[in-house]
Amino acid sequence: MKAAVITVGDEILIGQVVNTNAAYLSSKLFSIGIPVGRMVTVPDERREIISEFKSSFKSFDVILVTGGLGPTHDDITKTCIAEFFQARLVLNQKVLKNVKRMFRRRNIPMPQSNVEQAMVPQNAVVLYNRWGTAPGLLIEQGGKIFAAVPGVPFEMQKICEKHLIPYLKKTFKEALSGRVIIQKTIHTIGISESVLNERIGDVNRITGTKDGTTVKLAFLPANYEIRLRIAVEAPDENSAHWALNNAIRKLKDKAANYIYSYNESPIEKVVGEILRKKRLTISAAESCTGGLVASKITNVPRSSEYFLNGIVAYSNKSKVKLLGVKDSTLRKFGAVSRETAIEMARGIRKKSGSDIGISTTGIAGPSGAAKNKPVGLVWIGYSDKNITFAKDFIYTKDRLRNKEIMSKIALEVLRRKLLRITINN
Amino acid sequence: MKAAVITVGDEILIGQVVNTNAAYLSSKLFSIGIPVGRMVTVPDERREIISEFKSSFKSFDVILVTGGLGPTHDDITKTCIAEFFQARLVLNQKVLKNVKRMFRRRNIPMPQSNVEQAMVPQNAVVLYNRWGTAPGLLIEQGGKIFAAVPGVPFEMQKICEKHLIPYLKKTFKEALSGRVIIQKTIHTIGISESVLNERIGDVNRITGTKDGTTVKLAFLPANYEIRLRIAVEAPDENSAHWALNNAIRKLKDKAANYIYSYNESPIEKVVGEILRKKRLTISAAESCTGGLVASKITNVPRSSEYFLNGIVAYSNKSKVKLLGVKDSTLRKFGAVSRETAIEMARGIRKKSGSDIGISTTGIAGPSGAAKNKPVGLVWIGYSDKNITFAKDFIYTKDRLRNKEIMSKIALEVLRRKLLRITINN
Repeated sequence: MKAAVITVGDEILIGQVVNTNAAYLSSKLFSIGIPVGRMVTVPDERREIISEFKSSFKSFDVILVTGGLGPTHDDITKTCIAEFFQARLVLNQKVLKNVKRMFRRRNIPMPQSNVEQAMVPQNAVVLYNRWGTAPGLLIEQGGKIFAAVPGVPFEMQKICEKHLIPYLKKTFKEALSGRVIIQKTIHTIGISESVLNERIGDVNRITGTKDGTTVKLAFLPANYEIRLRIAVEAPDENSAHWALNNAIRKLKDKAANYIYSYNESPIEKVVGEILRKKRLTISAAESCTGGLVASKITNVPRSSEYFLNGIVAYSNKSKVKLLGVKDSTLRKFGAVSRETAIEMARGIRKKSGSDIGISTTGIAGPSGAAKNKPVGLVWIGYSDKNITFAKDFIYTKDRLRNKEIMSKIALEVLRRKLLRITINN
Repeated sequence: MKAAVITVGDEILIGQVVNTNAAYLSSKLFSIGIPVGRMVTVPDERREIISEFKSSFKSFDVILVTGGLGPTHDDITKTCIAEFFQARLVLNQKVLKNVKRMFRRRNIPMPQSNVEQAMVPQNAVVLYNRWGTAPGLLIEQGGKIFAAVPGVPFEMQKICEKHLIPYLKKTFKEALSGRVIIQKTIHTIGISESVLNERIGDVNRITGTKDGTTVKLAFLPANYEIRLRIAVEAPDENSAHWALNNAIRKLKDKAANYIYSYNESPIEKVVGEILRKKRLTISAAESCTGGLVASKITNVPRSSEYFLNGIVAYSNKSKVKLLGVKDSTLRKFGAVSRETAIEMARGIRKKSGSDIGISTTGIAGPSGAAKNKPVGLVWIGYSDKNITFAKDFIYTKDRLRNKEIMSKIALEVLRRKLLRITINN
């Protein structure tokens, strides 16, 4: 059983919008055992859309379409569906009622164009959208399922969770038994792809096919991280989990110190859990990362239980005034230095009364480089009641990537210290 | 002239990685007049990859492939290319030298697997990669161009800028003359898609075809924003720019107050430019946005010229201690209130000595809601020497989206105040 995901929209083809919807739909389908074999994006053009419907409907069991269901003139997916299935569009009163409700709630009059939103192909099951005005549509034909969901990510996700995915699971219940697909992604940080590859060694010891069970390992580099994805396909749950756990154990043997998460938690969540468990509080003093360390930490629900506060001290003056960095330190060593990072980390800790202080000072770029201080250089400071230190790192040249990577490094310095991991880099 | 973009990688098909590369390649191609007519993602499987090469090579003039060129076992794009073009792989000394240099620079021994990186199809032009180990490859055949670039975004982008795009421009110079494609995206904020659509009115007055010139308008909703994309295709530069400017003028007539950018600048850059021009400095006091307002402001190069500092006061205690919010205010009105937002904005302004103070206090969720204070509620405070006020907004229920939208609202409140724009919402 295989699925195709079709995205409709010129905005994707000209590269203006990144196709996050296709990623979402694929991961949802994969999670219920219907892997996606092909993703296609087509323009807002009748001929192209219908031609893609035709070829996907021929080769795949499940066809999901996203985009082009909105109220504006460039949305033509629904009329293409009606044409492809030779179905009439009929007014659905329940959808109309919901559209009217949406506008009442926002306290604005309903533009007439929104009545169109309530027209659905007569042969379609309506996937109700309580979060927006365009409903999802689902058509069963010849043992296959064809469904279309709106392109607004939040609405699409809600419709999938509430209606589409449960419908698919129910419909294909039998077909999906007797074949189990599971996957797991392990997150590593602070190690390069080929060094990690070398360290892991013979991947055949981890991957391979045996007794109808297949194990695959993929390396997925991202900013400062390499994710290791293990995908297992097996005849039953037990074999699948045995093979998966076996692969995980082997990877753990080889690279435990670099692995920060076995359950796709971001580094800020992992660090947050350690802090919560150890009943420690933290504060952050930031220069080059400009608030991104605090923002990452506070992405985690209930982070208020361990995160006390953050100070973004962008100028020398505010480093002195808000964090108690000494004027003489700034004069002698500069703002981007081990000494300043240390005083910032100690300063925020004392000022906040938190157990730990973390600091960042570096050169995010594109300007600001000085002799021996290139763009990309960052000092990360750490301070608790027993020890205060700083470490330097250097990565890349692009401002936004620098901010992102430097923030992750700060969190990784924290993780290693909290877990007493020592790595020589 | 049309292009196809093929992405190779299971990680895309299972939805683990969002395909930002395809977006990048498409926007680059579009910008030189070669629109992408189709984007496809295929699995790391020989048969699928080669079959897609075949069908794309038949229908398109330019075929760009990304992904699967790395040093690990799951990278098979290069051998598929060699098979498709029936070419031998030969060692390229210059590539090998570069691979060795990369490892020397990082001060780590080169894993043997990396010698493979220097093997290239004998009929390929090598697109050298100074930023990583996998080179790009380009093959000309039958007036068409087939090129493959690595999937690591930074390396791919550099290879495109330096080698691939110039090569395409040169090769298709004649074919690309006599047909001009331009596009412009206008960013609006704080207005819903259908209300904006209603306000703009008859889109035929803006779009349409005339004298061989076609104008298209698309609505692209994102968090709290609607982008309006105008795409023009015309026989020459003059007609194209005339039609584009005409469309822009009409949109401006209808929705000027909601438009914050005509050149794809993010809101933080637009606000930064206004502050710089007016020679005003700013500081931010954040609760629910947890540092994201400061992080957005400091995403802009040289923001240090107007951004003095930020304080993330996550607890009541730190609101009192770091920002001077009155205990009695917190007791009487709560942390999420007009009164607290006002005291935070005034507090950070006075503490920092900046001209303006901005503040956020709200409920990012998922927990923390109280009577009359649902998740998604935010108060934005503003303070300068003449006026201090706060406004409330309410959007959605998801923590990360709330942080993102609330930060944008804070920047939009700032923009409207600085430009003296009054909107009743």
